Amino acid sequence: MALVNLNADMGESFGRYRLGNDEALIKHVLSANIACGYHAADPGTIHATVKLAKDHGVEIGAHVAYPDLAGFGRRKMGLSEQEVFEITVYQIGAVKAFCAAENVPLNHVKPHGELYLAAAVDPEVARGVVRALKAVDDSLLLFLVGPIVDAACRDLGIMMVNEGYVDLDYNPDGSLYLDKKREARDPAEVARNAISLVEEGGRLALDGSSWIVLPTQTICMHGDMANGIELAKKTRKELQNRGHRVVKSRLVALASL
Amino acid sequence: MALVNLNADMGESFGRYRLGNDEALIKHVLSANIACGYHAADPGTIHATVKLAKDHGVEIGAHVAYPDLAGFGRRKMGLSEQEVFEITVYQIGAVKAFCAAENVPLNHVKPHGELYLAAAVDPEVARGVVRALKAVDDSLLLFLVGPIVDAACRDLGIMMVNEGYVDLDYNPDGSLYLDKKREARDPAEVARNAISLVEEGGRLALDGSSWIVLPTQTICMHGDMANGIELAKKTRKELQNRGHRVVKSRLVALASL
Amino acid sequence: MALVNLNADMGESFGRYRLGNDEALIKHVLSANIACGYHAADPGTIHATVKLAKDHGVEIGAHVAYPDLAGFGRRKMGLSEQEVFEITVYQIGAVKAFCAAENVPLNHVKPHGELYLAAAVDPEVARGVVRALKAVDDSLLLFLVGPIVDAACRDLGIMMVNEGYVDLDYNPDGSLYLDKKREARDPAEVARNAISLVEEGGRLALDGSSWIVLPTQTICMHGDMANGIELAKKTRKELQNRGHRVVKSRLVALASL
Amino acid sequence: MALVNLNADMGESFGRYRLGNDEALIKHVLSANIACGYHAADPGTIHATVKLAKDHGVEIGAHVAYPDLAGFGRRKMGLSEQEVFEITVYQIGAVKAFCAAENVPLNHVKPHGELYLAAAVDPEVARGVVRALKAVDDSLLLFLVGPIVDAACRDLGIMMVNEGYVDLDYNPDGSLYLDKKREARDPAEVARNAISLVEEGGRLALDGSSWIVLPTQTICMHGDMANGIELAKKTRKELQNRGHRVVKSRLVALASL
Repeated sequence: MALVNLNADMGESFGRYRLGNDEALIKHVLSANIACGYHAADPGTIHATVKLAKDHGVEIGAHVAYPDLAGFGRRKMGLSEQEVFEITVYQIGAVKAFCAAENVPLNHVKPHGELYLAAAVDPEVARGVVRALKAVDDSLLLFLVGPIVDAACRDLGIMMVNEGYVDLDYNPDGSLYLDKKREARDPAEVARNAISLVEEGGRLALDGSSWIVLPTQTICMHGDMANGIELAKKTRKELQNRGHRVVKSRLVALASL
Repeated sequence: MALVNLNADMGESFGRYRLGNDEALIKHVLSANIACGYHAADPGTIHATVKLAKDHGVEIGAHVAYPDLAGFGRRKMGLSEQEVFEITVYQIGAVKAFCAAENVPLNHVKPHGELYLAAAVDPEVARGVVRALKAVDDSLLLFLVGPIVDAACRDLGIMMVNEGYVDLDYNPDGSLYLDKKREARDPAEVARNAISLVEEGGRLALDGSSWIVLPTQTICMHGDMANGIELAKKTRKELQNRGHRVVKSRLVALASL
Repeated sequence: MALVNLNADMGESFGRYRLGNDEALIKHVLSANIACGYHAADPGTIHATVKLAKDHGVEIGAHVAYPDLAGFGRRKMGLSEQEVFEITVYQIGAVKAFCAAENVPLNHVKPHGELYLAAAVDPEVARGVVRALKAVDDSLLLFLVGPIVDAACRDLGIMMVNEGYVDLDYNPDGSLYLDKKREARDPAEVARNAISLVEEGGRLALDGSSWIVLPTQTICMHGDMANGIELAKKTRKELQNRGHRVVKSRLVALASL
Repeated sequence: MALVNLNADMGESFGRYRLGNDEALIKHVLSANIACGYHAADPGTIHATVKLAKDHGVEIGAHVAYPDLAGFGRRKMGLSEQEVFEITVYQIGAVKAFCAAENVPLNHVKPHGELYLAAAVDPEVARGVVRALKAVDDSLLLFLVGPIVDAACRDLGIMMVNEGYVDLDYNPDGSLYLDKKREARDPAEVARNAISLVEEGGRLALDGSSWIVLPTQTICMHGDMANGIELAKKTRKELQNRGHRVVKSRLVALASL
């Protein structure tokens, strides 16, 4: 029996543009990563999403990203450690203010898209992100993965919650394959991926050539996946059927101390 | 003998672009209004300016604005009360996070440019701004002016600090004449304007046709005025020569209770 | 029997965000107004939409707007005549370059949202727009409406194509009621509106209180209306059933000389 | 005796922010690379700079860049060949429209900052840029350098004008050292660099360790260098003193056929 958290990226609409189905997805996860206006979202969308999470008793995180609305934060950008620190502080602050407006705590931070991928492999980017949490509120959890971020977190006293993906695939080198199309996936297969992460501590790479070690504490479900709601529902149900407890990230983090 | 505060707009550089002379000006004021990235500033500029204010023991405020970098927040924008509320919360949060990073409090909020002018005359805009302070932190002071904002502040329990201008002129209807050129002004005249505000509670309109009632608690000095440093220095000195105490806005506000 | 053009706003997707159903709608109109990156669209979207229009033999126009992605160009902005001129030239140029890349001409310009409404009532805004066409290419047609724009066009030698709306309503003062929800409309009623415009030269106001004189040469169909495709299809069919010829705007304009 | 062109980056102001000294610098160069709104500039700045170039009989180019105002186009961005193509077409179109407004031709295109550096070493980026010139107007010259861009230009039938730098240094691997500070340089040394490029076809690397082969047809002078005007003046004078002819890029390109 394991403790595991389910999280989802939310609040990615922007002005006239709608994206995802937050109202449906939020019923199946425990933590919401809310876009901060850099890769998606405007202040009104952030506010509405914070209220939605509050109404469902879901933990709130800041989904920080590179400043690239046109690229949805999915393009590499050459920012220095200091620049990463600064944009992360800024974005945390923006979401935290809407949390204050709704009298709910900000629980965690999760980088988005290429900032996530860069932080996982580049010590400078990792450090820029972790320093931002340390500076604004050192009780914030960081949803990320891998030894580089882990080292930065240990160094600065920030708690990392290891994240695993089940509706995306891993390259043989352990990196995430960033599929931009988000087509429908087989719910049973996605649920099996989740069980593999939680029970085996890893998953097979996309081409089956290697085993990726991923000691997972939180699993990300994507609302912009074609059948994302179904995937989240099935994953949660199968994890519970196997006797695992799907809980808030704060509890997973505390239990690991 | 009166208590009066001197404030200045700061942190209005953006990326490669430098504006103002914050390092010099900050020595002559007690409160800094720091741009939030909407009309000016990037996260690095905000951070540097918060640190500068901290180093000089100067109060920090969020200088919130319409989202219009190209227009420097000096163009009218038709935002609803709700939109004004949302952009104000967002911007307060961004600056507040850098204050948290530096362990200094956020003291106040001051709208910039056309948002300032709109709030002073439009009850919906005024209410959008005041609601944002109420939502994020109801101990924040609001630097603004006029009966419309005053009413919104009283209604929601926010303390307003009445602001007067001395290096800009007033139209006969009491509105501020938003001079975009910012050419040099005569220091003696500017200081006389300050004394008129503090001792007489008003100033003559630009064309001399009418008396503008302005019960001033804080005076704004502009760093992007051609001889802004000199103006701030002279104004402060003359106020003190007349026996007035130039103090923090928090003290002015508390003394008025 | 009259000549009348049908136009539609297209290319309003942005990065990760999809909007409208251009592929379906383009079969039912003769002219496409392509967003320029100011209220919607990115360069890739512009290119794809120019190609789509070319493939369907549809006239291409630049759908120029205020610089406000977050507000989708539907918020008032206080730009001077000179600023309107400059942003219009810029946006025309951007779309024209993709036309050059595809060896098709740029046929017309149509302001979007609040810029459209402002140009119709404010002589300075009207003149800013018309001067831009004159400056870049004085054979460009302008899709707009009303005596103020008409006067500016006559003054500068630009041909205006009078536009009427059938899936939106008019206020009693003749201004357009900018409904942001874009819910489904009754196709028969919308087609009747079109016939009223073409045969009677006007429509009843929203509240039935007055008759709005609108000598219409082109009718706008909205792809982001819930049942926009059906409305366009029905409108075109009913106009043809009444014996009217649905043709390109260039032909309507030349026939009116 | 050689033909050589002098060019300068211009029009890099933005809204309230002033940068460079275009009015002074333009007297000393034959070609102006005008920012397009992506790394710097707004439509009004583009227009004013096109007029300035026209008034001085200076060739006009589009100074295309990554979409990154906050980073001034000096941060790496992971754009695909297709995305580079699209943003380049867009930006060329914007400047070309202001050229049309002023009845002057657009002569050339020069990438800015990191897009310049990326195009010089990455065949996909190079091809994206060159395809854009081919698509919009295949008589446009491309100011760039190196075998990768040269190959793309030959392949697509675009004329490249080889550019060399004299107020910046080269790394031992031949890449440009992108100094963001732009401090003053010794005019005599900068002029010697120019003579080395024109007469020897290269320069010594920053550390003196290797000879960089640079068969230069145009030399870039920076207006935002602390003493940029002096450097341009001195460089032009020394080149002429050595008997070289400082001419338009169009003439250099034609002479090389």
